[in-house]
Amino acid sequence: MNPAIRSVARYAIHKGLEVYGILRGYTGLMEGDFIKLNHRSVSNIVGRGGTILKTARCPEFFKVSGQKKAVEQLKKHLIDALVVIGGDGSFRGAHKLSLHWNIQVVGIPGTIDNDLNGTDYTIGSDTAVNVALDAIDKIRDTATSLERIFIVEVMGRLSGYIALQVGIAGGAEEVIIPEERFNVGNICERIKEGRRKGKYSWIIIVAEGAVNSYDLAKVIKKRTGFDIRVSVLGYVQRGGSPTAFDRVLATSLGPAAVDAVLHGKSDIMMGISNGDIREIPFAIAVRKKAWLDKNLFGLIRILT
Amino acid sequence: MNPAIRSVARYAIHKGLEVYGILRGYTGLMEGDFIKLNHRSVSNIVGRGGTILKTARCPEFFKVSGQKKAVEQLKKHLIDALVVIGGDGSFRGAHKLSLHWNIQVVGIPGTIDNDLNGTDYTIGSDTAVNVALDAIDKIRDTATSLERIFIVEVMGRLSGYIALQVGIAGGAEEVIIPEERFNVGNICERIKEGRRKGKYSWIIIVAEGAVNSYDLAKVIKKRTGFDIRVSVLGYVQRGGSPTAFDRVLATSLGPAAVDAVLHGKSDIMMGISNGDIREIPFAIAVRKKAWLDKNLFGLIRILT
Amino acid sequence: MNPAIRSVARYAIHKGLEVYGILRGYTGLMEGDFIKLNHRSVSNIVGRGGTILKTARCPEFFKVSGQKKAVEQLKKHLIDALVVIGGDGSFRGAHKLSLHWNIQVVGIPGTIDNDLNGTDYTIGSDTAVNVALDAIDKIRDTATSLERIFIVEVMGRLSGYIALQVGIAGGAEEVIIPEERFNVGNICERIKEGRRKGKYSWIIIVAEGAVNSYDLAKVIKKRTGFDIRVSVLGYVQRGGSPTAFDRVLATSLGPAAVDAVLHGKSDIMMGISNGDIREIPFAIAVRKKAWLDKNLFGLIRILT
Amino acid sequence: MNPAIRSVARYAIHKGLEVYGILRGYTGLMEGDFIKLNHRSVSNIVGRGGTILKTARCPEFFKVSGQKKAVEQLKKHLIDALVVIGGDGSFRGAHKLSLHWNIQVVGIPGTIDNDLNGTDYTIGSDTAVNVALDAIDKIRDTATSLERIFIVEVMGRLSGYIALQVGIAGGAEEVIIPEERFNVGNICERIKEGRRKGKYSWIIIVAEGAVNSYDLAKVIKKRTGFDIRVSVLGYVQRGGSPTAFDRVLATSLGPAAVDAVLHGKSDIMMGISNGDIREIPFAIAVRKKAWLDKNLFGLIRILT
Repeated sequence: MNPAIRSVARYAIHKGLEVYGILRGYTGLMEGDFIKLNHRSVSNIVGRGGTILKTARCPEFFKVSGQKKAVEQLKKHLIDALVVIGGDGSFRGAHKLSLHWNIQVVGIPGTIDNDLNGTDYTIGSDTAVNVALDAIDKIRDTATSLERIFIVEVMGRLSGYIALQVGIAGGAEEVIIPEERFNVGNICERIKEGRRKGKYSWIIIVAEGAVNSYDLAKVIKKRTGFDIRVSVLGYVQRGGSPTAFDRVLATSLGPAAVDAVLHGKSDIMMGISNGDIREIPFAIAVRKKAWLDKNLFGLIRILT
Repeated sequence: MNPAIRSVARYAIHKGLEVYGILRGYTGLMEGDFIKLNHRSVSNIVGRGGTILKTARCPEFFKVSGQKKAVEQLKKHLIDALVVIGGDGSFRGAHKLSLHWNIQVVGIPGTIDNDLNGTDYTIGSDTAVNVALDAIDKIRDTATSLERIFIVEVMGRLSGYIALQVGIAGGAEEVIIPEERFNVGNICERIKEGRRKGKYSWIIIVAEGAVNSYDLAKVIKKRTGFDIRVSVLGYVQRGGSPTAFDRVLATSLGPAAVDAVLHGKSDIMMGISNGDIREIPFAIAVRKKAWLDKNLFGLIRILT
Repeated sequence: MNPAIRSVARYAIHKGLEVYGILRGYTGLMEGDFIKLNHRSVSNIVGRGGTILKTARCPEFFKVSGQKKAVEQLKKHLIDALVVIGGDGSFRGAHKLSLHWNIQVVGIPGTIDNDLNGTDYTIGSDTAVNVALDAIDKIRDTATSLERIFIVEVMGRLSGYIALQVGIAGGAEEVIIPEERFNVGNICERIKEGRRKGKYSWIIIVAEGAVNSYDLAKVIKKRTGFDIRVSVLGYVQRGGSPTAFDRVLATSLGPAAVDAVLHGKSDIMMGISNGDIREIPFAIAVRKKAWLDKNLFGLIRILT
Repeated sequence: MNPAIRSVARYAIHKGLEVYGILRGYTGLMEGDFIKLNHRSVSNIVGRGGTILKTARCPEFFKVSGQKKAVEQLKKHLIDALVVIGGDGSFRGAHKLSLHWNIQVVGIPGTIDNDLNGTDYTIGSDTAVNVALDAIDKIRDTATSLERIFIVEVMGRLSGYIALQVGIAGGAEEVIIPEERFNVGNICERIKEGRRKGKYSWIIIVAEGAVNSYDLAKVIKKRTGFDIRVSVLGYVQRGGSPTAFDRVLATSLGPAAVDAVLHGKSDIMMGISNGDIREIPFAIAVRKKAWLDKNLFGLIRILT
């Protein structure tokens, strides 16, 4: 997030605009929690994980009363346009602001699940995948020494994007994602057959939304008799210094969003598709994305 | 482990000895799973996590029948002395071999819990602490952005060593270890008081042996009403490229162990104490260690 | 490289082919230095930097005599097709083999400079950029504490790709690349003006082919009076565990190359363009690529 | 540095003291550049490289006039005691303040060279060694693939401490340090002999104060004919998130320094020796330290 905040702020200032940061997302928007940003406010944040503006869930914003508060704060502070960095939920809110309240809003896709339509990548996803991969690599060090079965739970309630990327990149034996059915019996068969062939370590990547990792471990242990270890990476994946890819993406999309604002655009997200920066209406961006590359998914089993 | 294997093997070869690696610990010892090591066998392993010789638990070795098998294999392969890299359990076994079977055995302390008596450090501990710390740092990025409570479970069934080091180094708000009682009510009070003072994020480090992290999360949520997220690092902490500290330690102790063998020593572990390499009888090394620095533990609460 | 070797080998074996690895590139090809690869040969290499097959420069291969030797070795070992992982030079050689000697050759783009035509990305580039970025981040920690000017030389004899990515991602004040003229006088003016405004630290990224870093340091010191520190990252950038992006790319292109071989294709590189895997004739792949995004380059100065 | 600043500030506040941070070292001391520190001022810095208080060289402070200015500022701000985090130079200055001006000063050892007498470790050294080691590991990935000779220059003008630690931990073939003579002819002989035995890659660690790396490269190339690559890590080594060891050390010494102040101690550095925190007079701390472990140095050649 931080590289996006930096590039939006500095580019907008360069264009002669006055820039405010809104703290804790829509919560701060409703409460008028704005801070003026100058060139220096965003110094030395390009490599920092998290966001200097903080975030918060804000169910109230999805009610008309919440939106009304936000609009009043924007009017009171003489804010002409809003740049929203976020995912699905943030953009549904932004869409309402634009549609029903006539507020100029431009979005920048920032979600680790890479599940927004119209953009090939979202900011944060590459970083989250690399953080999770680093954990898998460390487990592999041990896996080959210890000859055990490891379940690693990665983020993804509705999306198996991180799990699949990490599974391919980490050479995992199994990847379990919400988008694809899985059969625990087949997994156990493959494990048992592997042992017969002399393969003793096994890494199973589970997207958090696909199955409970501890339940899965119990079933596999019962059916195979082998020892299982579970790691739940959790919020570790949301931190860490952003990767070069995420920083360059954020640094490209930020100025594009400011330019879109200056051109009077609204109700759109700036995305990157086939190497070009594009404008995608919020209404399209938040539709369910058919991201799953079945070929890539199929490689998991062929390559291990 | 690998830097220790490398330094033992190369130093012993340099001293004119013939060196064999025993695969999968005592299991391989009983089964005669030995591989000859030359200078090249241990090339490019100094930076690799895990161990090229693999490890395995081996309950059978603690029976006389298991030890007998091991001794027969050693005789059969004309092995004169054994260097064992491991912890508590490994050294109990080594002690038996030396005492009852007259096998020359010298130990090198390798356990992430740093719980062996007579040595200030054990190989692997510094690496495990830094791996866990990296996870805490990443969670902190998010913690300050998200204003939530995070529980991070680190390794340590009987020992809170890793938890305390990581808690101090990571600036955690609470550290829960097996060696010290804790009161969940007090923790909840501190959290609620913190919120009143404007402190919204909270990191609680839990040694796996102290309390079940998920149960703890439920209680805190119930009593404070705040959202909790749990990360269970698990075997991630056993992998990763060893730190400089662990590699230098391993590289120092390996040749010392070989020298001890050449001087006819047995039933001892090579440890490092007050900067000097020392010989510690196995019987002493495996006694419960009073490692807990209460001053350091007390700083957790003062500094956060 | 290793993830590409792994995916080519395992996918080809899965397709029923016999696979050999050729050691040290064209040198090994001329000398018949082939090793049979089975499923196990490429175990646990997906996360390792470098290449298990080693590389070497081989000027002789660009002579007819060298190619003849290679062709004889291929015939002798009954090799039907060649998969070449490499860059510019490797593909010029591969093109000759295909065109003049009727050998079936398919290429996979592997070069840190991302300078091959027809593919948006090349394997290794994302990893090199992130390694260099990590160094810049560390220097920035010090830069802001120490108030000095730092020159960091990154790889790129003919290409400023790494320098620009790293400069954008690292928030560098200046990026000097072979593709764009630079004026040291202007740089010194900006430094002096920055000091007047209270900006004391300055990071200048130099692509190795653009200017000698030590000479540049001398000139800047002479003209501004400020202290300069030079870091030359060198071959550090060629190592390190590959990023998720590079591993997924390699794991996608490997099987595609094998499929192309099975379909009788030759004289082509498998590239990725606009998200799709494509076949690009070697003759096109090695042409000079117009990669420089002037907009992105222009952002360097706007954002710092 | 930051973990030390945090632990001094928070522990002192906990003890009821008022705490000021002095910006840019002795420069800020002379100029009265003080900022009041409260509990929050040092939030979230425990994992950050560099120092939030910045540093600067300050030759003027070594003159009486400079010290006088400093003393006046301390009087003016009603500062009773000073905690100085630094090395050799800082403590020489601190010693003068204490001896000639009757200012209460307690030091905390913070220098990457680990060259202070009376303390086994100094803050920052473990971090610098690990950063340099990471670079060596990356070069080794390439070294074994590329079969070349690499020179890596690490920090250390007068001290070979970092070079030796990194050389041992990184499995370098040669380590050149200011404390030990070296013979370039012997190095070249060993390289040529290695080649004859099939050893093609070679890593030479050079402490910056021992020899100019580029000159060394020229000589070796001339005498052996082999290709050499030079990396100069430079200030990269001064950055990076501190290791657990450095953070725990800093977090232990900070409160100890505050306690020493409260007990009226002055003209001393808090060090750690044989596991205990001790008070070392500045006059002793800055004396030349005989740190070099010849045994360890000798292992370099035996183990590679």
